[in-house]
Amino acid sequence: MTTHTAADPPRERLLRAAAELFYAEGVNATGVDRLCRAAGVSKRSMYQLFETKDALVAESLDRVGPATAARYLPADPGALSPRDAVLHVFEAADAATAEPGFHGCPFVTTATELRDAGHPASVVARRHKAALTGYFVAQARRGGAADPETLGAQLTLVFDGAAARAVVRGEGTGGLGRATAEVLLDAAGIVGG
Amino acid sequence: MTTHTAADPPRERLLRAAAELFYAEGVNATGVDRLCRAAGVSKRSMYQLFETKDALVAESLDRVGPATAARYLPADPGALSPRDAVLHVFEAADAATAEPGFHGCPFVTTATELRDAGHPASVVARRHKAALTGYFVAQARRGGAADPETLGAQLTLVFDGAAARAVVRGEGTGGLGRATAEVLLDAAGIVGG
Repeated sequence: MTTHTAADPPRERLLRAAAELFYAEGVNATGVDRLCRAAGVSKRSMYQLFETKDALVAESLDRVGPATAARYLPADPGALSPRDAVLHVFEAADAATAEPGFHGCPFVTTATELRDAGHPASVVARRHKAALTGYFVAQARRGGAADPETLGAQLTLVFDGAAARAVVRGEGTGGLGRATAEVLLDAAGIVGG
Repeated sequence: MTTHTAADPPRERLLRAAAELFYAEGVNATGVDRLCRAAGVSKRSMYQLFETKDALVAESLDRVGPATAARYLPADPGALSPRDAVLHVFEAADAATAEPGFHGCPFVTTATELRDAGHPASVVARRHKAALTGYFVAQARRGGAADPETLGAQLTLVFDGAAARAVVRGEGTGGLGRATAEVLLDAAGIVGG
């Protein structure tokens, strides 16, 4: 549910309603009329605040980033072993897939719907996914992986594959993301607690 | 491009145009008007042939299955070692991600867009993904994996994660799908050519 109050400025209300509706129903399935109704903002005002729907899609997706990072990344990865710092993400991800209203990683889902790598929101999606991979690479390096870049990319593959599985099956992954990440960490010699 | 000829029956033309447009532009982005124009079929005829757009989405997706299997699976897996029979799929998948017009696995993409595990097309998607997992499980069993069911599910995770990576980055995976599958096969002791 959109949780704005009338006291929020229209820009804020639009960004919040956009993030919610685009994720819950889809970028293409959510028209501007519906969005403005949900935000309690006139279309005229919307187009004064955002030049195009595309710009709103991009900015609202960008604002999903911090919440997503807070949800999946540990507050202080350095306090964990490299292995635990990676597995923390997969535990959170496996748990997220079982929640009602889970529709995949918002960045992958949006890029999938847009089918245009040059769309401003696809650029946002790419940047946020690269940040996740960067996190994995940093932990892989800290753990002494021979090829931290490849391991980081592979862990992102597992992360996104777990989300896809949950979307297709309509149920949580039951720990499969974490179990698969463990195989990759074991193979890279990143063991121990 | 839609490659029907006027000689094809309307039902055929609709299914072919639907499969192409839904994959290229999206299920939600493709309205019935556009679809009927592409197929050269009147809306009235369409609704005589398919009760709803949803039914057309489901049936057109179902028909993607055989082409997808032919593209990714070896003609005679038994002629290959279990390892090669798995890696064949990942080589084909890595190659597919680099092709223009690649928009991810059609089953995952459609399920992602629909956001409804009970939609008839989501049921179709689930069945076709289960068939891919079944293929991996069969190879894992043939290769003597201790837990073929889990390995099969994990290989599907990697398959879908590779597609997601390509969609987000707008470029091919450069062999990362295969390389990741190899780590899982190695860990399961499915080695050798």
